[in-house]
Amino acid sequence: MDEKLWNQRKQSAADWFRQLRDALCARLESLEPEGAVFERKAWQRKDHAGDGSEDLGGGEMSMLHGQAFEKAGVHISTVYGVFSEEFRKQVAGAEDDPRFWAGGISVIIHPTNPNAPTAHMNTRMVVTTKGWFGGGGDLTPMLDAARTPDHQDTVDFHAAYKAACDKHDSDYYPRFKEQCDKYFFLPHRNETRGTGGIFYDHLDSGDWDADFAFTQDVGRAFVDIYPEIAKRRIDLPYDEAMRHEQMQRRGRYVEFNLLYDRGTMFGLKTGGNVESILSSMPPTVMWK
Amino acid sequence: MDEKLWNQRKQSAADWFRQLRDALCARLESLEPEGAVFERKAWQRKDHAGDGSEDLGGGEMSMLHGQAFEKAGVHISTVYGVFSEEFRKQVAGAEDDPRFWAGGISVIIHPTNPNAPTAHMNTRMVVTTKGWFGGGGDLTPMLDAARTPDHQDTVDFHAAYKAACDKHDSDYYPRFKEQCDKYFFLPHRNETRGTGGIFYDHLDSGDWDADFAFTQDVGRAFVDIYPEIAKRRIDLPYDEAMRHEQMQRRGRYVEFNLLYDRGTMFGLKTGGNVESILSSMPPTVMWK
Repeated sequence: MDEKLWNQRKQSAADWFRQLRDALCARLESLEPEGAVFERKAWQRKDHAGDGSEDLGGGEMSMLHGQAFEKAGVHISTVYGVFSEEFRKQVAGAEDDPRFWAGGISVIIHPTNPNAPTAHMNTRMVVTTKGWFGGGGDLTPMLDAARTPDHQDTVDFHAAYKAACDKHDSDYYPRFKEQCDKYFFLPHRNETRGTGGIFYDHLDSGDWDADFAFTQDVGRAFVDIYPEIAKRRIDLPYDEAMRHEQMQRRGRYVEFNLLYDRGTMFGLKTGGNVESILSSMPPTVMWK
Repeated sequence: MDEKLWNQRKQSAADWFRQLRDALCARLESLEPEGAVFERKAWQRKDHAGDGSEDLGGGEMSMLHGQAFEKAGVHISTVYGVFSEEFRKQVAGAEDDPRFWAGGISVIIHPTNPNAPTAHMNTRMVVTTKGWFGGGGDLTPMLDAARTPDHQDTVDFHAAYKAACDKHDSDYYPRFKEQCDKYFFLPHRNETRGTGGIFYDHLDSGDWDADFAFTQDVGRAFVDIYPEIAKRRIDLPYDEAMRHEQMQRRGRYVEFNLLYDRGTMFGLKTGGNVESILSSMPPTVMWK
């Protein structure tokens, strides 16, 4: 690999994730009726084996506890170092050279109003002896009445992602939509987490600039569409029964994240930043 | 194995788990100020491979949604059949003959009042070409102020189990207490689930009657001590901050059950009764 070129690429990606974070936080804050804002907190990655002095990267959490958004997290991170023996065999391109770099943004938004859907988005760039992008976004309506493919929120969410995909490759949307449906599924409930979106990984078309541009468009699509969807829902009236339905649906979200989500389990079992990883947990939850 | 003798033993154990269920439900109902009662629901075990006509056992769920006890489940089950290839190698005595029988009781109690601790208890008898008992009970105080080994609730809970153990073998309490502490631990939080209790498995001393008598005493100890502890806490005053602390502590309980509990994961990933397995989830939960 051309080290100088890849250093530039890492820098470009990290700069982008930060810009995207700033744009999304600003847009969500603009919907807060009483001026609630994100609180930012930096963290440094620590290696269990090391003495703590080594620079292994870190990240910035941004958490919002507002009126419109009961809980929202918009996190960026840039981490690097050397994979453990165990992970060398599991990560593409790491078997012979265990050094890695990973930068990304991770977003989870739990609105207060049960009429507004929960949403998740993340994109990342990973570099070993190979380099690739991954990520996606998906929507989880809280009320059964909104959990249909032809509900306006889901129609608009998918349309935004389809447009972002189609700009780059007409195969992307159908492929990445299917991967999303497969991934965000709860076998023990025999139900999907939500109404889908797109999900992709190991994207390396051979044209880094094109893959980066696509990943940027995936982020832009989310910033464009999700706040619009939230905006038309967050002031609708709702009753206690709807709030309870929302809190039970959030329970399914918890079940997915703790039982099946690879990122969550990977992070928790390998000494990741627990506070950041579990910031995706919904704020209030019910199980019948 | 002497089939007639073991059929008698299975019947004795199943009868006992039912008696214990009845005694515990009655005792908890007696603490309900407005007469809330357990609702009972029977279920039949289904085998994914079979046509549904085969008798594979089943169980009875008993759920209480009361004033004193926001949510309590007291479940009994008696299941039997043939282990899949995968499980033959994982279960003692099943490698050469995959037939099994398992009977047990499983209890989880989430009181409404944050001053009252959550408690869990289960005991079971398993028969393959071998036969053994397993189970235990553990306490999870909700408030940090009560999460100490010298808090009265924990002192009394451990004393009851120590007395039950010491009647049978002076090694039992220290051994089973240690196993409990090891098992109910959240590595990603570096904290225990609660303040412990006892936990044992594969108990086969060579004297079935003695092992059964011990398992009965483990159940009796719970019926004797837990309602007493709850009784002195369920009417204490509490404020919203304490309620929030309780709901966040319950979040840790969810994390343990979905990330680490072998019974939960085993059940969910092998087609167990989802409703019964996840009835252990706390009723209302918060994550900050």
